[in-house]
Amino acid sequence: MYGNQNYGGYGGYAPGAAPGMGPTGVSPDVQQWFNTVDKDRSGQINWEELQGALINGQGKNFSESACKLMIGMFDRDKTGTIDVNEFQQLFTYINQWLAVFKNYDRDQSGHIEESELAQALQQMGFKFSPEFIKFLIAKSDLQHHKQISVDQFIVLCVQIQRFTEAFRVRDKELKGVITIAFEDFLSVAINCST
Amino acid sequence: MYGNQNYGGYGGYAPGAAPGMGPTGVSPDVQQWFNTVDKDRSGQINWEELQGALINGQGKNFSESACKLMIGMFDRDKTGTIDVNEFQQLFTYINQWLAVFKNYDRDQSGHIEESELAQALQQMGFKFSPEFIKFLIAKSDLQHHKQISVDQFIVLCVQIQRFTEAFRVRDKELKGVITIAFEDFLSVAINCST
Repeated sequence: MYGNQNYGGYGGYAPGAAPGMGPTGVSPDVQQWFNTVDKDRSGQINWEELQGALINGQGKNFSESACKLMIGMFDRDKTGTIDVNEFQQLFTYINQWLAVFKNYDRDQSGHIEESELAQALQQMGFKFSPEFIKFLIAKSDLQHHKQISVDQFIVLCVQIQRFTEAFRVRDKELKGVITIAFEDFLSVAINCST
Repeated sequence: MYGNQNYGGYGGYAPGAAPGMGPTGVSPDVQQWFNTVDKDRSGQINWEELQGALINGQGKNFSESACKLMIGMFDRDKTGTIDVNEFQQLFTYINQWLAVFKNYDRDQSGHIEESELAQALQQMGFKFSPEFIKFLIAKSDLQHHKQISVDQFIVLCVQIQRFTEAFRVRDKELKGVITIAFEDFLSVAINCST
């Protein structure tokens, strides 16, 4: 389900980069889900409509960041919305992430904790120190610094992947070190963050 | 109100780095505001309570990112919440940003557009290309790529400041270029993003 490459000491990928797949027929299930989510019947879904439809394992709606991130990944014409074909791809993508997440959430609590996150990231090819894992959790779980929910997990993994990819492109000799100018740094930083 | 330094080609700062000021007496106005925002009467405000109390010029609540960012800046003990003293500092901070924003929102529309954003950033010491300004607006205004609201403006400016500061610390000789290893890059990226 996810690659396990390890290039030059930094990591690989999680669920396949679905954007780029050609449109296929939309299944009736997906069409029905789309119609429910598309509250204003515009034929397009924006991040707010998506947020209204996605609940994490803790009974809360997916975060704004997660919804904007996911819409942005499938919104090819950059209108801030997706149509039913793009939605079908997003649907598959979310289900892939749910499967990854459930695989690590062994007690089906709806969240994963430090050791489970470390394991998940290691499977994706990242070897981070325990301090870095703690830091990642504290960034997601602002109040208790203990656990992350599925939407936070998606945001975290996609962010790590994007920054890794941006780094890798610049690290042509796989040295694990890059030289980067200010504007390039800033544009990578803002482009990859959610 | 904001500095206008320009070090080695990259920018300065916006509203003063309020965190770090000693607690002072809390004004009755602020106390009253705090009591209204603190819905669960816990004596502490989290980002969700703050979001419920802040409306931007377009009649929408401040974004999740903006509220998390601002709580995070004044939450010294990293509990994800702030008390009334920290809230007073946040209150001042938000008002400073509102004043900066209003200064550029000349028609009082509640949002600023491309040329106004360029001007605001230039006053803060940043000289960005028109393409970069367009990119910044498109990142904030996902659907129309035209304008940004006050909460988006705060997020954008704080992000730019943080990344600039992280860059500057590593650019000891003020060359406008840094050499950075993967883990450091990733931790800066995740730490400074919202």
